[in-house]
Amino acid sequence: MNLFAQIAVTATLGSVALVGYAQTGDVFSPQQRNLWLQKAAAAMSVMQETVKYPVRKVAIVSDTAAYQGWKAVEAGAAAAFFDTSLKTQSGTVLDFGEHLTGYFSCTFALTTTSVSDAPVRLKLTFAETPAELAIPFDPYPGGLSRAWLQDETVTVDYIPSSFSLSRRVSFRYLKIEVLGSSSFDFRISEMNIRAQTSAVGEPEPLPAATPPLIKDIDRIGVATLRECMQTVYEDGPKRDRRLWLGDLYLEALANACSFKNHTLTKRCLYLLAAVAAPDGLLHACAFDIPDIHPQTGTQILDYALLFNTALLDYLKNTGDRETALDLWPVALQQTEVAKTFIGDTFMYNGKPIWIFFDWRSGFDTKAAIQGCFVKTFKDACELAQLLGRQKDVATLPAFTAKLAGAARKNMFDAKRGVFVSGPDRQISYLSQAWMTLGGVLSKKEAQKALKTVLSMPEAVYPGTPYGTHFFIEALIACGLHTEAREYLLQYWGGMVHKGADTFWEVYDPDNDLLSPYNFAPINSYCHAWACTPVYFIRNYPEIFAK
Amino acid sequence: MNLFAQIAVTATLGSVALVGYAQTGDVFSPQQRNLWLQKAAAAMSVMQETVKYPVRKVAIVSDTAAYQGWKAVEAGAAAAFFDTSLKTQSGTVLDFGEHLTGYFSCTFALTTTSVSDAPVRLKLTFAETPAELAIPFDPYPGGLSRAWLQDETVTVDYIPSSFSLSRRVSFRYLKIEVLGSSSFDFRISEMNIRAQTSAVGEPEPLPAATPPLIKDIDRIGVATLRECMQTVYEDGPKRDRRLWLGDLYLEALANACSFKNHTLTKRCLYLLAAVAAPDGLLHACAFDIPDIHPQTGTQILDYALLFNTALLDYLKNTGDRETALDLWPVALQQTEVAKTFIGDTFMYNGKPIWIFFDWRSGFDTKAAIQGCFVKTFKDACELAQLLGRQKDVATLPAFTAKLAGAARKNMFDAKRGVFVSGPDRQISYLSQAWMTLGGVLSKKEAQKALKTVLSMPEAVYPGTPYGTHFFIEALIACGLHTEAREYLLQYWGGMVHKGADTFWEVYDPDNDLLSPYNFAPINSYCHAWACTPVYFIRNYPEIFAK
Repeated sequence: MNLFAQIAVTATLGSVALVGYAQTGDVFSPQQRNLWLQKAAAAMSVMQETVKYPVRKVAIVSDTAAYQGWKAVEAGAAAAFFDTSLKTQSGTVLDFGEHLTGYFSCTFALTTTSVSDAPVRLKLTFAETPAELAIPFDPYPGGLSRAWLQDETVTVDYIPSSFSLSRRVSFRYLKIEVLGSSSFDFRISEMNIRAQTSAVGEPEPLPAATPPLIKDIDRIGVATLRECMQTVYEDGPKRDRRLWLGDLYLEALANACSFKNHTLTKRCLYLLAAVAAPDGLLHACAFDIPDIHPQTGTQILDYALLFNTALLDYLKNTGDRETALDLWPVALQQTEVAKTFIGDTFMYNGKPIWIFFDWRSGFDTKAAIQGCFVKTFKDACELAQLLGRQKDVATLPAFTAKLAGAARKNMFDAKRGVFVSGPDRQISYLSQAWMTLGGVLSKKEAQKALKTVLSMPEAVYPGTPYGTHFFIEALIACGLHTEAREYLLQYWGGMVHKGADTFWEVYDPDNDLLSPYNFAPINSYCHAWACTPVYFIRNYPEIFAK
Repeated sequence: MNLFAQIAVTATLGSVALVGYAQTGDVFSPQQRNLWLQKAAAAMSVMQETVKYPVRKVAIVSDTAAYQGWKAVEAGAAAAFFDTSLKTQSGTVLDFGEHLTGYFSCTFALTTTSVSDAPVRLKLTFAETPAELAIPFDPYPGGLSRAWLQDETVTVDYIPSSFSLSRRVSFRYLKIEVLGSSSFDFRISEMNIRAQTSAVGEPEPLPAATPPLIKDIDRIGVATLRECMQTVYEDGPKRDRRLWLGDLYLEALANACSFKNHTLTKRCLYLLAAVAAPDGLLHACAFDIPDIHPQTGTQILDYALLFNTALLDYLKNTGDRETALDLWPVALQQTEVAKTFIGDTFMYNGKPIWIFFDWRSGFDTKAAIQGCFVKTFKDACELAQLLGRQKDVATLPAFTAKLAGAARKNMFDAKRGVFVSGPDRQISYLSQAWMTLGGVLSKKEAQKALKTVLSMPEAVYPGTPYGTHFFIEALIACGLHTEAREYLLQYWGGMVHKGADTFWEVYDPDNDLLSPYNFAPINSYCHAWACTPVYFIRNYPEIFAK
């Protein structure tokens, strides 16, 4: 089913400061940054546009068994809505049948014999999940801007007229309330969303014999990825709508085995490079609207390190040596800056920087960052070799070996067979995962470490799809295929069973209302870092698609 | 002071159905209606545009002595607002120093080192009076569309950016509230209103010796008229923004001795003619946006009758016989249709129609409509004579004399010297006024009738500037100049003393919160029918400007 037929639109270079991103004490030359900016602009995707319509009316009904306590139930055909006075239908919820991202328009018409003599005041609330239409937004308790919530109050001056919302919205459900009107009667005669993505077409279908739940997980992951593929890989099309380096890494993995829009990956790699900090360390995120700029002051060490891995994967997937060579100085510089965070003991020296890995409260990142140093430095060396730039990293293999040695020496509890992290010797899924991905343990040791945490109820497990991705990747890396499959089925399958249309930013099987921002409706319910089952299922069919 | 410098903009014909306004059983031919529509379109004014800025910050302060209990007090220079973070100034009220009608824009800027990473949610409330910013709008108790209230919730996607509100606003004060934002800091660096009117320049100044209160009343009346002069004579630029026949009559009077934009009067006369009902009776109001159309079902007999008077005045003021001849069939038809409301006794026969004259609760209109028949039929005869169309009204003078006779016979209380109206023999200001304007009484009788009601506390007095206009006109007509001057000074002077920037739709000296719509903030505080002191002061300088 080709949901997104290609409609050619004029490619735009976007708004880009072609004079470069010159900074004081810059390790990169203005010419380099200018080149990267230009290449990011030139790699702008042709946006695919599809006009979509509501498919039915629904009622949002309280149900303790439903996800977040609310569900949408059938309440009639959409056609009836358009035939009927809006004044008699205030509060109607329309269901577009799928998660969509784009621009909303509608047409207001008078009913017979009416004359419009006053403006009409409406409230439009766009929602990714039923609960967003049931939980009051105000007074707003959340920790992010209230403005991300998609409720808009609209004044319609005259009827008949057409209305377009300038704001891009991301939703499946639309609630329409009449807040003010005069004695005349009117209806909405037509509405649509110009849905937008830079993903073209549909990925190859999975083998027919693939189990239904795996098919569902893949389908929802593909939808998640498609929605997040805009002019950059966005982290979430509802919120925060920007390019994060960590999400880019996961989206590029999923894209490479589904939509294969490698140009988008290229654009994002160049874009992040162009706006790196003066010392060369990449910002954790960047924006391309209204112009290309980084979120200055926001740097995540583990994200920056992943640039090497992402560029290596890109090169392997595309053979595009030109891009890889262009960006090699950036990749290399991540290892150079990373070294300033490593002390004489070949461990993280405590220099302040945000180390993320996961939103899990209380998670100690020291072991994970040690494993991440090892993993990404090895990737840097492999990338250098593929590009014939081994001399740039001549000392890195030995340095990396010392990091691995320090990890074993200082963090490995040989008796229990697990890595411990921090003063409280925390045992977590992600400490084992990153040490495994770094190859710090033998395959057998890694299997033991991972199995151990899986069997320990008190082990700190990941709280997000992002962290979960690396745990599953580690399970696969050491041959624990059954465990990898079970973990994926349990985690993403849990979201499927709870009715996900797209996969969520935050998913805790035991707490539907968990929010890093103190308010579940501000969570993103279509979040890039949750799309990676597409990668697992399609990249490891022998594990997942059987 | 030339506030509104002429900025030439392209004149537009507006959206006009040049196929005419054909209707079943139409007394006018499609060709006639088509001609009137085309002439209305061709008479579109060039809109005058002036860019205006806030002049200061104010605080809205409770004060039982202030109009409606609230006043605006100085709270600093406007410049400080633009230099300062908006997040620290949520709730600021900016004062533009005068009543303005047009299109609002502003520019959002980041403060140093900030990066915009989320949308911002703002509430903008535009207000004509301080109380509109203090009285909560919701839950809305009013009887007209809530959407007329000028509070807009706005999502600003990115900063820096520019924002324009698509809705036209009419206001002096603007309150700005931040409803949602992220950690980054921002300000509004610039804002303006593209103020719009079809009035050009400023009227002649009054003689220097004119008393200050008369000068104030004239100045505020001129501002009221200017604001209501848009693509049509609007009744109120905040609400209801349409052409009412009664308001047109008063605005045309004031315009003829101030801005002299007779083309606007012409456009409005043609426009109302073009959309008359099939029997030829004019609709009480019409719209020219989004296209020219009447408010079907809304006809006011006294308004329709005034078309003759308005066209007669137009001809006298301009000498434009072509227009008067074009529209003579419409004027004549008003007298023809009016006859169907007159019975064998030469009195109103009770056939249902809206008879207005004033919003005063309990006012009995029977005497006033009798006087109005006489007055406007006489005007029709004078108009016919000027146009050489006496034969069209050959029987009208005798008919009118019978109406006058019936009025005296059935409604005049000779003993008290006043007209009484309705079964309760109500004595009202407007009964006497309209009989005076119709010449039903001798000058001496009229003086006595008007003086009598002025001395009777229980006499029903007008509740609006509209009704008050005709009472003052009647005082002048019978030579009661001192009383006319005092009444005007007391009524419009009362609004001046209460701080009016423009004159109000409703003014009861004893009840600031009186509203025909059950909610004072929905009243119009710049209302066309309140502009007539401009006419009185400038047309009768010997009475008012001394």
